[in-house]
Amino acid sequence: MNDDPRFGLNRRVVLPGPLRLDGGTLLSPVEVGYETYGRLADNGGNAILICHALTGDQHVAATHPVTGKPGWWTRMVGPGRPIDPARHFVICANVLGSCMGSSGPATVNPATGKPWGMAFPVITIRDMVRAQALLLDHLGVEPLMAVVGGSMGGMQALSWAATFPERVSAAVVIASTARHSAQNIAFHEVGRQAIMADPKWRGGDYYAAGDPPAAGLAVARMAAHITYLSEAGLTEKFGRRLQARPDRPDGAKSFGFDADFQVESYLRHQGLAFTDRFDANAYLYITRALDYFDLAEEHGGTLAHAFAGTRTRFCIVSFDTDWLYPTSESRVIVHALNAAGARASFVELSSPFGHDAFLLESPELARVVDGFLRAGETA
Amino acid sequence: MNDDPRFGLNRRVVLPGPLRLDGGTLLSPVEVGYETYGRLADNGGNAILICHALTGDQHVAATHPVTGKPGWWTRMVGPGRPIDPARHFVICANVLGSCMGSSGPATVNPATGKPWGMAFPVITIRDMVRAQALLLDHLGVEPLMAVVGGSMGGMQALSWAATFPERVSAAVVIASTARHSAQNIAFHEVGRQAIMADPKWRGGDYYAAGDPPAAGLAVARMAAHITYLSEAGLTEKFGRRLQARPDRPDGAKSFGFDADFQVESYLRHQGLAFTDRFDANAYLYITRALDYFDLAEEHGGTLAHAFAGTRTRFCIVSFDTDWLYPTSESRVIVHALNAAGARASFVELSSPFGHDAFLLESPELARVVDGFLRAGETA
Repeated sequence: MNDDPRFGLNRRVVLPGPLRLDGGTLLSPVEVGYETYGRLADNGGNAILICHALTGDQHVAATHPVTGKPGWWTRMVGPGRPIDPARHFVICANVLGSCMGSSGPATVNPATGKPWGMAFPVITIRDMVRAQALLLDHLGVEPLMAVVGGSMGGMQALSWAATFPERVSAAVVIASTARHSAQNIAFHEVGRQAIMADPKWRGGDYYAAGDPPAAGLAVARMAAHITYLSEAGLTEKFGRRLQARPDRPDGAKSFGFDADFQVESYLRHQGLAFTDRFDANAYLYITRALDYFDLAEEHGGTLAHAFAGTRTRFCIVSFDTDWLYPTSESRVIVHALNAAGARASFVELSSPFGHDAFLLESPELARVVDGFLRAGETA
Repeated sequence: MNDDPRFGLNRRVVLPGPLRLDGGTLLSPVEVGYETYGRLADNGGNAILICHALTGDQHVAATHPVTGKPGWWTRMVGPGRPIDPARHFVICANVLGSCMGSSGPATVNPATGKPWGMAFPVITIRDMVRAQALLLDHLGVEPLMAVVGGSMGGMQALSWAATFPERVSAAVVIASTARHSAQNIAFHEVGRQAIMADPKWRGGDYYAAGDPPAAGLAVARMAAHITYLSEAGLTEKFGRRLQARPDRPDGAKSFGFDADFQVESYLRHQGLAFTDRFDANAYLYITRALDYFDLAEEHGGTLAHAFAGTRTRFCIVSFDTDWLYPTSESRVIVHALNAAGARASFVELSSPFGHDAFLLESPELARVVDGFLRAGETA
């Protein structure tokens, strides 16, 4: 098993499927890009699935092949971390609809031999979860000691517990929600309109031209990025400080439209850097999946029904300055879990960094997740 | 005076200037579009200047000539309203940099005979106020019994009191702030980047082509519009309700990229409708003026210094669900006024509608403004 070629970094598998999607389409084949860390225990009891967020990927704890940057959650996954490849078998898969090796608008439509573009079927969070289940079947992983995710990853963790309850011993849901609010949808719609307004988007059929709608995607990223940060965090980090320039080393207003303020420069950089590593159509599809997410709706309109009879243990974590998925959304989840009689622990952590806090160094978050996972190991 | 041709609806004047702008440029001539309502009292003591917000205009209480809609603040200005042309002489001028008759990027640069475009000088809130002062000089209005404004209009009211303290008896500052925060700047930067990313923007030189950057401007408007509404208000108004369609009269997910959710449809409409009445470059210039606004900075870094020795009475109003300019920003103003020994009253009103509440029917707001103005009339 140690030398199993299915395990390791930068893996990609083409599964035959078909996968029946929530929209009714049968998707076949189902491509999945993924990474694994550590060794699956002989009893199969140490598998942890990490679910990534909107613009995340499978490179959770290893160097990103495009950007060369460290994995996006090395604070949570790694030696001495709460999720430790020395003890756990860790799987992280690129979500369906994304652009890092899994089936999505940028992959080839077998019917045409060309990239799917907007012919790719619209997918849901549950579809992402079902594709991950296919991958686990392929890897020979049956039970999961835990599914762990922040933001959209937390939605997948919830959907895992609701869709495959017998397969999930524990779910860790961080800075997340059980449904997208009107404001969440509104911000995403701005991003989608920014992409679609870019003439280079060409109805999604831009791959052959080699000139993607980077300007629209950058604006979408900028708008979304504001929602990931708290006002207090932005003020602390940038305030109204001006950008230093060669001709104005101490910073001064240009009385022009340069990026005078540091926060402008930061946002422009965030927008541009994002376009180097992300596909605009994938952004459309994943934001759509997020907006469609309403776990209660999938269960007759009552969220508690999603967890009826569950034996999964839940750990729900929110951050006090997260205004994208505020603590009130986590409380809705906790109330539903309580109503369903599920074992649930909940903690609101304090952080100045808003939604992004789940990705940043947080000894409290590490302690909470570590304690929760260890309680399951010794049980 | 009743038949003075300077007074009335849809007026426009070309003043020789020059106006020295904060950026150092001398602007000449200075064009101002404006409206007046009511009659100036023989003692000149009943003049009220209304200052409009970012996308507002001088048509405060009369039909908008482009959209055919009623004035934007008929709830505040009109017969039986707190500001009543039967008692008050009301002036409302299009701000400098805008596009409804006042000098701005869409007006003609006398040096070239063509629209200014991005050659128009970057302006500030104080520049807007100075242009209004030129207009009042032209109209023969010396003291103002009150300057009244919401949002950017409130910033102008503050700037009036700080720049021409001897001329302002009272200032009403509603849903506003004394400086733009990092988050405020960030949202505006997204809008500016959306406009500038539109190829039809052409560096601001799009007037001759007759094909303005409407798509970019619509995205900018959509992003800004979210900040005008509260999350609770959006949820109440739209929630996750789906849009009815001919083929799906009860609404259903399209599993496509149509505007499935009512909030998407609403935002798209807001974006599109805006482009019919507003100039993209004007949006750039006015958002820049807002981002530059920091009244304390203009007074040595201490806001109270802006009001040193003032005899102006102030009425500060905030709304509890306004997250664009939250109550905490109004408190900063009130603390500075208190420190300066100014007469200031402050009230936080409750509304589900966020920042936009100042434009909507609010008996409480009307009562507060009416009482405040009448206290000055009887004093």
